[in-house]
Amino acid sequence: MEGIEIKNLVKKFRKDIVLDDISFNIEPEKIYGLLGRNGAGKSTLMNIIADRKFSNHGSVTLDGITIHDNDEQLSRIYLTSEVDVYPDRFKIKDLFSWIADIYKEFDYDLCKKLSSEFKLNEDSKFGNLSTGYNSIVKAIVALCVPADYIFLDEPILGLDAKNRDVFYNALIQTYSDRPRTFVISTHIIEEIANIISDVIVIKDSKVLINDSTENILKSSYEVTGPAAEVDRYTEDLNIIGSESLGKIKSNYIFGDLNDKPIPDTVTISNIDLQKLFVNLTDRE
Amino acid sequence: MEGIEIKNLVKKFRKDIVLDDISFNIEPEKIYGLLGRNGAGKSTLMNIIADRKFSNHGSVTLDGITIHDNDEQLSRIYLTSEVDVYPDRFKIKDLFSWIADIYKEFDYDLCKKLSSEFKLNEDSKFGNLSTGYNSIVKAIVALCVPADYIFLDEPILGLDAKNRDVFYNALIQTYSDRPRTFVISTHIIEEIANIISDVIVIKDSKVLINDSTENILKSSYEVTGPAAEVDRYTEDLNIIGSESLGKIKSNYIFGDLNDKPIPDTVTISNIDLQKLFVNLTDRE
Repeated sequence: MEGIEIKNLVKKFRKDIVLDDISFNIEPEKIYGLLGRNGAGKSTLMNIIADRKFSNHGSVTLDGITIHDNDEQLSRIYLTSEVDVYPDRFKIKDLFSWIADIYKEFDYDLCKKLSSEFKLNEDSKFGNLSTGYNSIVKAIVALCVPADYIFLDEPILGLDAKNRDVFYNALIQTYSDRPRTFVISTHIIEEIANIISDVIVIKDSKVLINDSTENILKSSYEVTGPAAEVDRYTEDLNIIGSESLGKIKSNYIFGDLNDKPIPDTVTISNIDLQKLFVNLTDRE
Repeated sequence: MEGIEIKNLVKKFRKDIVLDDISFNIEPEKIYGLLGRNGAGKSTLMNIIADRKFSNHGSVTLDGITIHDNDEQLSRIYLTSEVDVYPDRFKIKDLFSWIADIYKEFDYDLCKKLSSEFKLNEDSKFGNLSTGYNSIVKAIVALCVPADYIFLDEPILGLDAKNRDVFYNALIQTYSDRPRTFVISTHIIEEIANIISDVIVIKDSKVLINDSTENILKSSYEVTGPAAEVDRYTEDLNIIGSESLGKIKSNYIFGDLNDKPIPDTVTISNIDLQKLFVNLTDRE
């Protein structure tokens, strides 16, 4: 198959199982949101796919060929660094030209354009960057490298509202200029809901969901009304959470509704991705 | 006066002026939001107040006494570390008891309670924490130290939605148990709008605003209607931004409205803190 195939991946830290026999695919030319609670293993998963950490078991292939120790396959994958790997005294402009030397097809024009849009001072040294500009430098590089599968680990960490917009717009623009796969982990879910075509949710060391954003939102409902009637209508459904205010209750549903008649006092509406995620991942 | 008084503070990095002769006060028992674009100098300002970085000019006093090199005054101020100052191999539980040794009145009960609410594994080593849990450990310490002025530099960096709620609720709870001053820098403004009593906005190396959230929101308006009528009504006002959709225009106003009659086709509504901030800080 085309794309990245993750098969029976297991990762343990001592006695803790971080990834428990997970299998899923990452397809070409899609923009994925990789969602999960703090500590769910998102960074670990991305590091294993990019061959920076080792799994205890399982395989990762790209277009059917093992990625591990395979330079040709690895050159098609790019993962933003979690930690700061560049020397503190390195100037940003030297960093960019160094990366452009490594990746022959690095999009230097886009890099210059984004630096200007983010008002990045390329004469700054890496060690003097603020939290936000540290993220900005990493994001610029990720959007300009010629890889086919680009993993962005919390790209908007510390970015102000305006710069988050610059990033989201740049992502959409470069994707439409040259479609390729982006996998974005983030905790500001409502802001990427309109950008991502697909959602991967990790919970309890497993992949809970891997589906299109459209399908997921179509299957997410809030059923609101008098508590007794809401409970009666939703009793056979997949209730993922609920909220009450006095005698009024909302049950959140993920999956199909049933064919029972909907009581007049009960209203059904769709919920957004952030609310769905919180309810899906908050259950013990 | 009571509180922290910042007077004529100047900070330069080589030829760049980061803080340009700024003066303002931080009062006792308030919760401040410290807002500013990426690179505005928020972290630098907090580091100077906490005597971790030096200013080129100006003074910072607490209750009238200079903070610089004054251990007694410094013990009343706590700033979360921007970088990771703890050894990678340090276990979280050892970190907590080490801090409890330093600060005799460290709130150990609250520390244990928060660790459990955040589902923090205290046997983890500092170097193995994910981005989110790194922030969580720093936030727990900041909420439990017995200081009177607590500076939280981007406390929710990398926290998931549920853990952000845990943090906000813990902050409100500990503040109401023992009122003291918190100064919080963040870029997820809409989430703290209901928590902060006061807002400090830094722009172009100056303090643009230092006022109560209530006053600020009372002076923030969106004037919407046909472009010509909106422009005519707002021509004498402090327009901080505008948006257009076809012939309909919104002008954002910060300050007083005038006494002109409001045209029937024009509606005036209040705007939220995030929108106000983006418009205030986006102007060149």
